[in-house]
Amino acid sequence: MGACPWVATKPAGGLSGRVLNSSRTTDLATGMCPGWHSRDVSDLEDLRHRMRAFTNERDWEQFHDPKSLLLAIVGEVGELSELFQWLPATDASDLAQEDPLKSRVAEEMSDVLLYLVRLADVLGIDLHAAAVAKIEAAGERFAADEVRGTAPAKH
Amino acid sequence: MGACPWVATKPAGGLSGRVLNSSRTTDLATGMCPGWHSRDVSDLEDLRHRMRAFTNERDWEQFHDPKSLLLAIVGEVGELSELFQWLPATDASDLAQEDPLKSRVAEEMSDVLLYLVRLADVLGIDLHAAAVAKIEAAGERFAADEVRGTAPAKH
Amino acid sequence: MGACPWVATKPAGGLSGRVLNSSRTTDLATGMCPGWHSRDVSDLEDLRHRMRAFTNERDWEQFHDPKSLLLAIVGEVGELSELFQWLPATDASDLAQEDPLKSRVAEEMSDVLLYLVRLADVLGIDLHAAAVAKIEAAGERFAADEVRGTAPAKH
Amino acid sequence: MGACPWVATKPAGGLSGRVLNSSRTTDLATGMCPGWHSRDVSDLEDLRHRMRAFTNERDWEQFHDPKSLLLAIVGEVGELSELFQWLPATDASDLAQEDPLKSRVAEEMSDVLLYLVRLADVLGIDLHAAAVAKIEAAGERFAADEVRGTAPAKH
Repeated sequence: MGACPWVATKPAGGLSGRVLNSSRTTDLATGMCPGWHSRDVSDLEDLRHRMRAFTNERDWEQFHDPKSLLLAIVGEVGELSELFQWLPATDASDLAQEDPLKSRVAEEMSDVLLYLVRLADVLGIDLHAAAVAKIEAAGERFAADEVRGTAPAKH
Repeated sequence: MGACPWVATKPAGGLSGRVLNSSRTTDLATGMCPGWHSRDVSDLEDLRHRMRAFTNERDWEQFHDPKSLLLAIVGEVGELSELFQWLPATDASDLAQEDPLKSRVAEEMSDVLLYLVRLADVLGIDLHAAAVAKIEAAGERFAADEVRGTAPAKH
Repeated sequence: MGACPWVATKPAGGLSGRVLNSSRTTDLATGMCPGWHSRDVSDLEDLRHRMRAFTNERDWEQFHDPKSLLLAIVGEVGELSELFQWLPATDASDLAQEDPLKSRVAEEMSDVLLYLVRLADVLGIDLHAAAVAKIEAAGERFAADEVRGTAPAKH
Repeated sequence: MGACPWVATKPAGGLSGRVLNSSRTTDLATGMCPGWHSRDVSDLEDLRHRMRAFTNERDWEQFHDPKSLLLAIVGEVGELSELFQWLPATDASDLAQEDPLKSRVAEEMSDVLLYLVRLADVLGIDLHAAAVAKIEAAGERFAADEVRGTAPAKH
């Protein structure tokens, strides 16, 4: 599985703080990094690592070309849509707070995210960095004072 | 903008390590939390915060009901699909390594992620925890020794 | 159920040919128009009528606002995508010629079409006329001599 | 372009009615079948023929494998979604009655239909027959007396 680049470790010398230590490797039995607990590191890196391990253990890399992964994303977005399609728009948020719908929604959203993370891994895209750049660009494109309270129209 | 729940700070008493300190607030000028650098915290929390701030500054919460956000996700998945639709399946991954396609793909994937994160925020779903639970469930459902090299069929 | 606007009838005076006669009404037992056989009339009108009757008999018009129908379309496109996602791109067409996959594909494509026809009915759009106009516009936009053998790029 | 299998012609012997005559061919200048007027024949057959001709003239069959066409459908559903995403659910139908939105919606719905028809052609699926079978099956599955006024839940 290779390195655990996000592992927090206390470096020699006792300095406080977290450093990246690329020499730490995954545990052979679990595929997880040592000392792992998810809130301590990057969520997207965690999911990327988990999806890569899941795929590798099943020899499924052969199926994960971009167009196939895209169709998988579409499939999961479709399942998510089916959960909401007939709910009244104004009640949908409240209705989705209650189980079993809440759990089902969380599952389908997770599937979308996991395939998206997997596609980013296959393509070598840093999803967090790209998303930060995108929202910053959107912030400049849609100046708050000019668009406040008005939905941007798509043509 | 409110609190920066993920901010790493040195608590009174000088103990090392990171603690959550909900009293720290965002910088008024940048909307960012003090001492912020993205690799130090949860990516998904970061994006959730950014999208919430972006939405709030524009008074766009009124548009962000679940069905509308879902259609926005569909729109972005559609834009992503258009980038890949006519590429030969076997070359798609290589072709997407080169600009301008690489940048466009990263942008559209970012849009999908950002709206997904926003929907999770509206619905009160912890996307990382849900995704970890989902991949662990998938790991049990698809035992590696039974499915190795075989794509699971959907019927 | 109302009128059968597409019914072919021999008008008074005995002229040959088909005319539209909006006074003919559906058969109460079957919901179908008298003398109906599908290849004699417009397919899309037929489906529009059937979906309208299906919806009306169940009092489901209340659920068929545009955004809900759109999410239903997305759901069915998702189910269709799941049937193809892991198939090798070059074999997909051949594999989809064999049952049970062939029947499943036909079912999901039908669902997409039926919801699309229903959305067009709700919005008062003549889907056939619009599609003819669109393909004619595409024919002008993409001059055959200029684009032959080259997929149009989307940016 | 080839034959016009749907052309209505008066067969030798003078019997009234319409017959299929596969020897009639398209007009070289227009690509249309002689005596064509759309309401006289099957809409879906008409669109299938037009899309086949459009594709053939551009030598684009090479791009129209099922997974690519599916992504094209997804792209167009995405464009359609973007037109509706921020509209209030209860006003969407009225707002879509007015130009320029009405025309844009008709265009995007047409694109979805055209790619769907093209996919059916590639796969050898009779979309009208399949859709009729599907809605009849749905009629049996969802007995009107049992589901009246209640949206079927998806789980």
